[in-house]
Amino acid sequence: MLRVAIAGASGYTGFELVRILSHHPQVDLTTITSRQQAGQRLDQIYPAFKGHCELTFANTDPEILAANADLVFTALPHQAAMDIVPELLKRNVKVVDLSADYRLKDSKVYEAWYQPHKTPELLSEAVYGLPELHREQIRAARLVANPGCYPTSVILAAAPLLDKGLIEHRSLIADSKSGVTGAGRGVSLSVHFCEVSDSFKAYKVAEHRHTPEMEQELTHLAGEAVCLTFTPHLVPMSRGILSTVYATLREETTADHIDKAFAAFYREAPFVRLCGRGELPTTLQVRGSNYCDLGWRVDERNRRLIVVSVIDNLTRGASGQAVCNMNLMSDMAEELGLNYAPWQP
Amino acid sequence: MLRVAIAGASGYTGFELVRILSHHPQVDLTTITSRQQAGQRLDQIYPAFKGHCELTFANTDPEILAANADLVFTALPHQAAMDIVPELLKRNVKVVDLSADYRLKDSKVYEAWYQPHKTPELLSEAVYGLPELHREQIRAARLVANPGCYPTSVILAAAPLLDKGLIEHRSLIADSKSGVTGAGRGVSLSVHFCEVSDSFKAYKVAEHRHTPEMEQELTHLAGEAVCLTFTPHLVPMSRGILSTVYATLREETTADHIDKAFAAFYREAPFVRLCGRGELPTTLQVRGSNYCDLGWRVDERNRRLIVVSVIDNLTRGASGQAVCNMNLMSDMAEELGLNYAPWQP
Amino acid sequence: MLRVAIAGASGYTGFELVRILSHHPQVDLTTITSRQQAGQRLDQIYPAFKGHCELTFANTDPEILAANADLVFTALPHQAAMDIVPELLKRNVKVVDLSADYRLKDSKVYEAWYQPHKTPELLSEAVYGLPELHREQIRAARLVANPGCYPTSVILAAAPLLDKGLIEHRSLIADSKSGVTGAGRGVSLSVHFCEVSDSFKAYKVAEHRHTPEMEQELTHLAGEAVCLTFTPHLVPMSRGILSTVYATLREETTADHIDKAFAAFYREAPFVRLCGRGELPTTLQVRGSNYCDLGWRVDERNRRLIVVSVIDNLTRGASGQAVCNMNLMSDMAEELGLNYAPWQP
Amino acid sequence: MLRVAIAGASGYTGFELVRILSHHPQVDLTTITSRQQAGQRLDQIYPAFKGHCELTFANTDPEILAANADLVFTALPHQAAMDIVPELLKRNVKVVDLSADYRLKDSKVYEAWYQPHKTPELLSEAVYGLPELHREQIRAARLVANPGCYPTSVILAAAPLLDKGLIEHRSLIADSKSGVTGAGRGVSLSVHFCEVSDSFKAYKVAEHRHTPEMEQELTHLAGEAVCLTFTPHLVPMSRGILSTVYATLREETTADHIDKAFAAFYREAPFVRLCGRGELPTTLQVRGSNYCDLGWRVDERNRRLIVVSVIDNLTRGASGQAVCNMNLMSDMAEELGLNYAPWQP
Repeated sequence: MLRVAIAGASGYTGFELVRILSHHPQVDLTTITSRQQAGQRLDQIYPAFKGHCELTFANTDPEILAANADLVFTALPHQAAMDIVPELLKRNVKVVDLSADYRLKDSKVYEAWYQPHKTPELLSEAVYGLPELHREQIRAARLVANPGCYPTSVILAAAPLLDKGLIEHRSLIADSKSGVTGAGRGVSLSVHFCEVSDSFKAYKVAEHRHTPEMEQELTHLAGEAVCLTFTPHLVPMSRGILSTVYATLREETTADHIDKAFAAFYREAPFVRLCGRGELPTTLQVRGSNYCDLGWRVDERNRRLIVVSVIDNLTRGASGQAVCNMNLMSDMAEELGLNYAPWQP
Repeated sequence: MLRVAIAGASGYTGFELVRILSHHPQVDLTTITSRQQAGQRLDQIYPAFKGHCELTFANTDPEILAANADLVFTALPHQAAMDIVPELLKRNVKVVDLSADYRLKDSKVYEAWYQPHKTPELLSEAVYGLPELHREQIRAARLVANPGCYPTSVILAAAPLLDKGLIEHRSLIADSKSGVTGAGRGVSLSVHFCEVSDSFKAYKVAEHRHTPEMEQELTHLAGEAVCLTFTPHLVPMSRGILSTVYATLREETTADHIDKAFAAFYREAPFVRLCGRGELPTTLQVRGSNYCDLGWRVDERNRRLIVVSVIDNLTRGASGQAVCNMNLMSDMAEELGLNYAPWQP
Repeated sequence: MLRVAIAGASGYTGFELVRILSHHPQVDLTTITSRQQAGQRLDQIYPAFKGHCELTFANTDPEILAANADLVFTALPHQAAMDIVPELLKRNVKVVDLSADYRLKDSKVYEAWYQPHKTPELLSEAVYGLPELHREQIRAARLVANPGCYPTSVILAAAPLLDKGLIEHRSLIADSKSGVTGAGRGVSLSVHFCEVSDSFKAYKVAEHRHTPEMEQELTHLAGEAVCLTFTPHLVPMSRGILSTVYATLREETTADHIDKAFAAFYREAPFVRLCGRGELPTTLQVRGSNYCDLGWRVDERNRRLIVVSVIDNLTRGASGQAVCNMNLMSDMAEELGLNYAPWQP
Repeated sequence: MLRVAIAGASGYTGFELVRILSHHPQVDLTTITSRQQAGQRLDQIYPAFKGHCELTFANTDPEILAANADLVFTALPHQAAMDIVPELLKRNVKVVDLSADYRLKDSKVYEAWYQPHKTPELLSEAVYGLPELHREQIRAARLVANPGCYPTSVILAAAPLLDKGLIEHRSLIADSKSGVTGAGRGVSLSVHFCEVSDSFKAYKVAEHRHTPEMEQELTHLAGEAVCLTFTPHLVPMSRGILSTVYATLREETTADHIDKAFAAFYREAPFVRLCGRGELPTTLQVRGSNYCDLGWRVDERNRRLIVVSVIDNLTRGASGQAVCNMNLMSDMAEELGLNYAPWQP
């Protein structure tokens, strides 16, 4: 049994980690921490867990975490992660970090979109935890930077196309729509039920911090700089992201090339399901699961490809993917603890 | 491995059975049937199941079902169940029937609320499948009548009180609120998104067919005739039932008596969680699970007890409870395949 | 033109007042105030109002309010209202107070459920602003205490029954369900979209502060003390209250008596619509309007009456009723500015 | 008073017409028709209208309509409109047609996307009823083809840009998101509450019939053929459309040019509200109103413009715009009966 801990377990991604780990056959969840909730039992503040987790929140202290875990999930806000991750690595604990702090390879890019980085030397070591792109490196990693929710949905939609050089890079647009859990469990007017319900909006258009993360990975795949337009929107639902990705086809590209590129790229991927050309997935069909379902369609009238990608933002977009990374880092089967059917409806 | 089949698997309760059974460690789901969908693959009409169920719908034929299953779940409309259940029993197949056809012991009561019964002789054999009330009989049964969703939530809220004689029977009122999956997957104006969303209504007030089922079980517990008022309401949400049950306390009853009655009655029940006096559960905290969570409060100003009961109408109110009954009928642990944490949020 | 002002205009009831008053043919809305928003334009923080209200929030100062208005709506939290209402009355300004501070006639009852009262001497003067009960007194009033949202829905459902002595008083139960705007625009975890959506809960069972207000008015109608059980619930929708009111019929009461009592009591009421016996209203059918729609049904099996009452909690339950009171206090037609069709869907 | 009738009044756009017209100060709504509901009172099948409309549905007969109305709104499915509109015109009745039958100038385009046209000779006479583009022609028209909901939101977002030649035509993409009333009141699995709620999907990608309508109007503005990619999505809400429109800026275009183009184009438009550069509107802020609110942002990193446009699909996208057209055709003020504040929240 692998001993694991969660640092910062009182938000939605923390709860989702507890949910998944409490059923994982080879994991012993020993410790959960939270600054605000320290001293309280999880099942008191979250009665859903009664009978499934009897842990009490500890303070977020690297000493305690390292004493009780072989691997720690850090589900802290960015900047807070930077303080604790190096302390854990020093104590020979493996880390899956769910913040943005170790996702970008270039500290200058990080600092342009976020704030000064305290341990830039770790950036080259950290592995970007998207198994479909970096499976082998994840297996060998001490530190995995778990991808953002939007980047997961967008990169998986575009990767086969860039990998095979089927599209014009400059034409890439990702129009993404997310459920409200993506905004976290903190309170604010923007997540007030009555401001969200029966409404729809765009936000942080062309300035969302997930942009450089997408560009880093897509650039890597394309072999040349990719600069995309990214527009996030808020959907009046709790869970799910749907990304509609647009690209102009290169002159020689046929619809058949696209079908083959997707099939080849995801041949070995247990958590990508291809709906195929013309069949488009809904967020409901992946709810609660680690799947990314992909469909696409070619608009021959103007040679444009539209790829639709759906994930559950809390599972594939955060905690499910983190557990998948843990599995790989610990020499377990990639699907362990995650191969259940989506929640319907 | 127990071989099981589902007759009528194309509705919400059918899907929920497939979901649960596909993860059950001692079950082999061999056959699913549907009149309308016969010949189609389940994962084509319901892409969520891709990778989890590769079955194709067969026709609802007792011969096929009996040849492929030791136990059959009949998730058919009432009246349709009556036609097939006897055929299955004849062929030595155990049955958990999710319709209303075998829930009432008295065929006259059935006929007053439904229609003529074709096999009244089976009513005395059928066991009402609420494990907290009839666990031992279920273990020995060939035919279990799975309770209705509303009755499950109401009976569990009232049972300890009637069992101990703590309330005035005539004062019992159940004000229940259900999510829309309770209306099934059939299309009609009453489940049109725009007619349900941002609205709330009562329906079938004092004439809902689940009334006699509650009265049968509560009468059995009370040892004298119980006649209650039952008011169902429709909530703009997919899953969940909350029942607010009102009763006037008998003169000698104290709050302490009530606490003790609940604790004693559910001492051995793995799927009832007591929130206790003053703590009231939400439907969210049981979503997707087989739990019934119970809280209560005494209004001392007028000696009235208010019990709040929550279940997931598709899981505890239908398919989860059916699997629980299957476990008991097959000598497996009651919780098998069902002891996972609720879906949050 | 009547000059009016709104003290505390930055919450949902304040916005709803602005909406209604901006279309009222005989009103000039001159002033809106807000502690938090002072100095900001309303249409900047609430862009829906662009083109409809160009006012800037002033500080909540009685001097400013009295200089600019003949009548002031105070939409402040209780306790804050107590500080400003007397100052306005001193300056010869009429007041419709939307807080709870002047609803209860008996300062001891107020103090038992709220806090010490600073101006108990005004309680006898204040008129409880439910036009169907106190129309003539409202016309003559300087200070009208606008009813709470739940009490509006419950009192209108029960008033004809108590007035005619058709039910057993001790049997009265009000099981009410409200949309989330009822909780106000303040932020908290309990109104977070993801905690409310696809969930349902009861809260403040048998201890909600709207209870004494209902009892005061029902007692007045019955001519003897009425003590009821009141259970509020939260519905995942923005607007609307549905109250299911239960009562045992007196021995001699027939269904016909009930029909006649409703018809007689509301003969002159432009904002009560009777659906009649057996026809039950939905909250959707009154959304955005000042209507209260009523339907009822008798459960002859146990001689119980169930009345279903629906209102829009922000309109009939707060701001629409307040404008109706203003109309009456200012010698205008009761319906002025309010006789538009509900918003569908 | 203008006498008006509605042919096909039993769907959502029909109800919305009744709602608006019942408050219009210079309209007398004399007749409503419906094949299915003929003989029934409107307020019986739609109790929200009790007290606002006492009409009974007649059969959809041109003789009856012409005898009772100076202007008829035809809110029928396409193909059905084609049968009745010519009959009305023959009888000297003006028509605002809400179907797609008279929107396209070129019958070949109509027939490529729809079916054979029965009265192609009327296509040149019909005026496309988007007041911001064709105000003067609408004033003089006998037959106005009311725009589709998606085209209204997309054309208003792009018109100033094409009119001033600020963008590359080939780069135009419209990613639109609609509430469920857009699908109409007919029942189907795709509008079942449980299939829509907490889900999000794209549909008819690159093949939606509203595409040629957008292209016709945008081509007219651009002075050369415009071919755009259009992707509609379904949002779990009742009302509202948000369109995110993408275009690459021409080399010489600056952000300032864009601001000026919008300001100039909509200088006289009472129902377009400009949020400006960087301020993005939500669908909630226009709910129930005839407004189109527009905001935009330039992604300088890749010279792309993103325009966000919001409307209420039933009001501006259908019935409100139809009434606006009626106002213009009848020499009334454009805003009459429509200048009320949006419904919040």
